Amino acid sequence: MASSSPATTPLLKDELDIVIPTIRNLDFLEMWRPFFQPYHLIIVQDGDPSKTIKVPDGFDYELYNRNDINRILGPRSSCISFKDSACRCFGYMVSKKKYIFTIDDDCFVAKNPSGEDINALEQHIKNLLSPSTPLFFNTLYDPYREGADFVRGYPFSLREGVPTAVSHGLWLNIPDYDAPTQLVKPRERNSRYVDAVLTIPKGTLFPMCGMNLAFDRDLIGPAMYFGLMGDGQPIGRYDDMWAGWCVKVICDHLGLGVKTGLPYIWHSKASNPFVNLKKEYKGIFWQEEIIPFFQSASLPRECTTVQKCYIELSKQVKQKLSKVDPYFDKLADAMVTWIEAWDELNPSAGSAKLANGTA
Amino acid sequence: MASSSPATTPLLKDELDIVIPTIRNLDFLEMWRPFFQPYHLIIVQDGDPSKTIKVPDGFDYELYNRNDINRILGPRSSCISFKDSACRCFGYMVSKKKYIFTIDDDCFVAKNPSGEDINALEQHIKNLLSPSTPLFFNTLYDPYREGADFVRGYPFSLREGVPTAVSHGLWLNIPDYDAPTQLVKPRERNSRYVDAVLTIPKGTLFPMCGMNLAFDRDLIGPAMYFGLMGDGQPIGRYDDMWAGWCVKVICDHLGLGVKTGLPYIWHSKASNPFVNLKKEYKGIFWQEEIIPFFQSASLPRECTTVQKCYIELSKQVKQKLSKVDPYFDKLADAMVTWIEAWDELNPSAGSAKLANGTA
Repeated sequence: MASSSPATTPLLKDELDIVIPTIRNLDFLEMWRPFFQPYHLIIVQDGDPSKTIKVPDGFDYELYNRNDINRILGPRSSCISFKDSACRCFGYMVSKKKYIFTIDDDCFVAKNPSGEDINALEQHIKNLLSPSTPLFFNTLYDPYREGADFVRGYPFSLREGVPTAVSHGLWLNIPDYDAPTQLVKPRERNSRYVDAVLTIPKGTLFPMCGMNLAFDRDLIGPAMYFGLMGDGQPIGRYDDMWAGWCVKVICDHLGLGVKTGLPYIWHSKASNPFVNLKKEYKGIFWQEEIIPFFQSASLPRECTTVQKCYIELSKQVKQKLSKVDPYFDKLADAMVTWIEAWDELNPSAGSAKLANGTA
Repeated sequence: MASSSPATTPLLKDELDIVIPTIRNLDFLEMWRPFFQPYHLIIVQDGDPSKTIKVPDGFDYELYNRNDINRILGPRSSCISFKDSACRCFGYMVSKKKYIFTIDDDCFVAKNPSGEDINALEQHIKNLLSPSTPLFFNTLYDPYREGADFVRGYPFSLREGVPTAVSHGLWLNIPDYDAPTQLVKPRERNSRYVDAVLTIPKGTLFPMCGMNLAFDRDLIGPAMYFGLMGDGQPIGRYDDMWAGWCVKVICDHLGLGVKTGLPYIWHSKASNPFVNLKKEYKGIFWQEEIIPFFQSASLPRECTTVQKCYIELSKQVKQKLSKVDPYFDKLADAMVTWIEAWDELNPSAGSAKLANGTA
């Protein structure tokens, strides 16, 4: 294990918020109580603000509904999705902590192959506190884990790694499939526990799922915008994907790392594939143009903060994706509004500096 | 599981050769007997040709020593290393089969977490017969494995994948560490069984280890040159690394895939770190310049076969690495000699065509 990984994982109690979109199922919090109770929760309610979410005793939390979002952001609240779990990104913005963990309310505690409960949060913290290695692939996976290291042939100059901005966790039981795959394989369950964490290499895009995700808000927060989904929008279920593509391009530019793999959560139920197909329908076509766009996106050297990168990306979206659908014109504007709102709520926040001289 | 992966794995008995450098330990073949006996073995003896390797009864094999190599290749035998296991690549050249599996004689049958013997060859065949996905990362690893698929957000146009040229297997027990890491962590053992196969993304280099490696000779064979190592050379233990960097650049250019992960073998003993340090010493410096060279290497569109790509790469090596050390000038010449020898021994072999229009 490389020396940069801590021997015991710090709790980061005062440095991490857990952001949860609407909790429809109170078993969820009971099940996570031993792991979540030390932390502050930010719950972002995604539907009718007159409904009340009853949070069990003993949790330290704040809850925002649509009225709160409108009151706090004023006209800029237009950038926060309504009636869609994409609204969770409002929680990232109002948090004042360095780290965020976000999880869906149908995700429960999974067990490792020895039958022990997996402390997902602890693994995310491990991932975020140890460096990433995006510039060269290590065949024994994360070299900073106990019992692992860099293998023969790994350049020594790259072994310091780069700061980790994102930790993307996975799901046992119901895999995160799109509607067509759900329809074709209704009975498929993920039972393969892969005991690995790895860095997604520089220049490679991935499908970032928001179900079980942690990140360093100081390093990448302003890029974690979940876009315009749900009520009044032509598309759904691409909120986390959109964020992931933007985040990866910006991490690559700023010399930051993205890890995926452990920890697993237990994803309890599949969402309705017919409803999902309706939400995804346009995205299935659009992503064929969005992916090449992000694969070839390049940010100029002057973009030395996440905010500058994100504004530049919004311009490129407007310029190159608006012809796919007018929706992207609206989305590009919302990206700018999001950054304005972020900076208003986080006036003194230091934003990520160019860690490596990459461009 | 995507339909392109076969339900039962074919043996490929008449389509695969096993290439082994000098066998110093006859337990090796006894242990592998149930798995290797159906196949033809090519043994390439790396030292004194007057010594005899006794192969146990029941194996179908051919054995080449230095006298054979000199006789078959004539003056071109200069491209084959002497007194180094890098000589194994001569076996790739004389094989007439589509697939090669190569393994070291200190690698034994490993057990999976259920305690069953791992049929490494079967897993390599699975890897080679199912496509690779170098253009976008799938977070549930190889989407073609049973119980897995492409996750939400994976572009549908990329789900056909590309042909797999290389399957890189891993090692339980003694990890493949360089001399400095061996010296610092003499007791480290790899006991983590990671149940995954994944594609190394396009544009990303990796350290390819020759201990447990399979490839499609028709697709990438002429690039599997293990360089000049051992007797009379200033460097050792970079034979497989060199091959891996060349192979990856060419696979990326030709639209071919490289997989890593399963299968594991049991690597029984660490080689002497002091001897290794002597062999690696110059490589540790040189790789700091070799890696950026390969990371920025680009092949022109006219390079539509592995041979053409390899000759072009040899020119770039001569032009850009000779200034690092005169060794690279010699190596660049040997790369050309290797291709001449390959083409002489494989006159009618179809070489890989440009699968994708990438450049």
